[in-house]
Amino acid sequence: MLATAIIDKKRDFQELSREEIRFMIDGLTAGTVSDPQIAAWAMAITCRGMNEAETTALTDAMLDSGSRLERGSDRPRIDKHSTGGLGDKVSLILAPLLACFDVEVPMLSGRGLGITGGTLDKLESYPGYRCNLSASEIDAQLQSLGCVITGTTPDIAPADRRLYQLRDVTGTVPSVSLITASIMSKKLAATLDALVLDVKWGSGAFMQSLDQARELADALVATGQRMGVATRAMLTDMNQPLGKMVGNACEANEAVDVLRGDGPADTRELTLRLAASLLVQASLYDDSSRAYDALAARLLDGTAYERFHKMVAAQGGVFQPLLPVAPVATEIGAADSGWLSGLNGAQLGRAVIELGGGRQQLGDRLDHSVGLEMLARLGERVDAGQPVVRIFSSNPDRTRAAAALIRSAITIGERPITAPSLIVPSA
Amino acid sequence: MLATAIIDKKRDFQELSREEIRFMIDGLTAGTVSDPQIAAWAMAITCRGMNEAETTALTDAMLDSGSRLERGSDRPRIDKHSTGGLGDKVSLILAPLLACFDVEVPMLSGRGLGITGGTLDKLESYPGYRCNLSASEIDAQLQSLGCVITGTTPDIAPADRRLYQLRDVTGTVPSVSLITASIMSKKLAATLDALVLDVKWGSGAFMQSLDQARELADALVATGQRMGVATRAMLTDMNQPLGKMVGNACEANEAVDVLRGDGPADTRELTLRLAASLLVQASLYDDSSRAYDALAARLLDGTAYERFHKMVAAQGGVFQPLLPVAPVATEIGAADSGWLSGLNGAQLGRAVIELGGGRQQLGDRLDHSVGLEMLARLGERVDAGQPVVRIFSSNPDRTRAAAALIRSAITIGERPITAPSLIVPSA
Repeated sequence: MLATAIIDKKRDFQELSREEIRFMIDGLTAGTVSDPQIAAWAMAITCRGMNEAETTALTDAMLDSGSRLERGSDRPRIDKHSTGGLGDKVSLILAPLLACFDVEVPMLSGRGLGITGGTLDKLESYPGYRCNLSASEIDAQLQSLGCVITGTTPDIAPADRRLYQLRDVTGTVPSVSLITASIMSKKLAATLDALVLDVKWGSGAFMQSLDQARELADALVATGQRMGVATRAMLTDMNQPLGKMVGNACEANEAVDVLRGDGPADTRELTLRLAASLLVQASLYDDSSRAYDALAARLLDGTAYERFHKMVAAQGGVFQPLLPVAPVATEIGAADSGWLSGLNGAQLGRAVIELGGGRQQLGDRLDHSVGLEMLARLGERVDAGQPVVRIFSSNPDRTRAAAALIRSAITIGERPITAPSLIVPSA
Repeated sequence: MLATAIIDKKRDFQELSREEIRFMIDGLTAGTVSDPQIAAWAMAITCRGMNEAETTALTDAMLDSGSRLERGSDRPRIDKHSTGGLGDKVSLILAPLLACFDVEVPMLSGRGLGITGGTLDKLESYPGYRCNLSASEIDAQLQSLGCVITGTTPDIAPADRRLYQLRDVTGTVPSVSLITASIMSKKLAATLDALVLDVKWGSGAFMQSLDQARELADALVATGQRMGVATRAMLTDMNQPLGKMVGNACEANEAVDVLRGDGPADTRELTLRLAASLLVQASLYDDSSRAYDALAARLLDGTAYERFHKMVAAQGGVFQPLLPVAPVATEIGAADSGWLSGLNGAQLGRAVIELGGGRQQLGDRLDHSVGLEMLARLGERVDAGQPVVRIFSSNPDRTRAAAALIRSAITIGERPITAPSLIVPSA
């Protein structure tokens, strides 16, 4: 087999065989196919697309480039993945909540890069929290607590890491097939029975339109099903942050609010819906409304909260019910009276980066204490000067830069608007 | 400017600015844009295309990556480029023929790779012929003889060399824009007034269909005109070799036949038509039929032949009117009686490589003495067993391999066919 012939084939709109796709990924891992060849191939895939069979073969080859987590019990293994959004602290609630049932939740997460935050960064707001658990430590914690939230181990899907480094600099990130294979190869390395995907759409998400998000959701679900894992997806709104808080410690505190039966309605609702879907997918419940009620009960009776507390402690973190956050620096008010009709997520995300709460580049150190609080939601009537966003920061220069971005993120309309639904039914 | 943003733009079907294209080519030359980025960009160009303005900007940037030949006189500088085909020895005749007029022909040529031969290889059949003339040697020879056929100097369009190495292994060779910029950046480095392009189509050409050839011809002409050079193109037939002979010394001998007023009609006709076009483009003649007649007279009166002889000698070659060729090894006959309806150029070209007369890889050494002679032309009536191709070779193993390929190249039809016209009018 020749790499050039495989690149030609994709360039010429042809379907690649399982063997050809494996040849490229094995060659990427072994270094026998060159980086320029992989980059050109990735661009051909981005331009020409891949069908479900090809995307599944790509996922499978990337999965096989590394090792998988072993199963230490017969309990169903379930997990959730979000495509990333502003204020998305669902994982912090969902993992310990599901662990209250007879399941294992081996959540291998990432750090934040660009405008969306990372689950690991939020958890590292607890001093000492370890994100580099070994495969055997993960297994032990799943046995004892039923849940773990840690970083991907180095031997999981190394081809994905290598490919992503190339994609990042070669304009080949926005390919549904490449995104799908990247997500699924890492998730399926946890040897799951069921997976639910929270595919975000809107100004604060990678997929700006509902159609793009639906295309990605379809590819993710098809690939998961073809790989033998019960997979579902929800299309959820990211035209405004999820919950009220954005920023690492701020979001951890808000997650704790939900875990204690309180917190913002959208965050609570989305978490329960995703978790209920998983309990049904894993056949622990027949219908999702009964699963939902059972899960909601665990938020009210304190067991989910306790499980979270234990998880943080098991991973070396010093748990505190309310983490300290930076002082209120200022509040950004509405420029006019009217209806809050736009909260540009990209701008809000950049504001958090300016404050020091997000990364521009891999390796940037974070200030976990900074953040934003949303004081109004899309569609609300606001008066001129009424505070819309509160900034937590102790650095005046950074606050000023963030404030400018936040002002540009807020649109006040002259007419009422209807905010997008939190969850759009998937096809 | 960011390389990734420029790659994204082309991927997303947008037109690149002159500055963006120059940024990429300068970055390629300086090494500040990485090879994977260039490869992905080349694939995006291959998939999405470039318009005339972009292709011209690309040509210009590649031209500016190196130096140009200086002009030592006011005489018009003219040149021809062929996209390559089997048996194409036109350059050997055309350069000295045109040099009989008051012009300069600075022909910077290449070596053969794959199925089509190279002008330099053919000339190196004369022992001692030098293809590595310096810019000042080129200039001196243009002053004294009016023509030179030598290799591209290392400081001409280095970006093209670098880009071609990447394209060759990344599936990005067949892009009309990239081909156009590659050809034109090297040709225009000779500081031309007029250029004619011989764009081949058919089984022995890079462009298999007339439509593809026309698209390339249009791009080449548009780019040349935009760069201020009088540029024309002819679409010519490569469904069978040009002339009767294929192979290095064989073709040099056939070129000499034409230079002495003899030789095959197609080769003579095509050479005269291309040369006549150039004399009109350079305003030495008003109409091409008068130019044609004047050129034909130079073939008959021996001046073109003498000029060729002098050129070979000036470049260190030992001229011989008839170079020795390998003995006739065998003749391949028609399998059936009928009409010769196919002579697959790719197969014939591979046969020459098998004989040792062509290169599979850059750097392969050639046997200049081997070759093929076409004993029948497309459309001719042949009887079963009648010889169609004669093989010159002294190596039985190589002959056997070549014979098998030649047999597969010959199609005998049950009905008469009309062979394609030698020259198709360009749009």
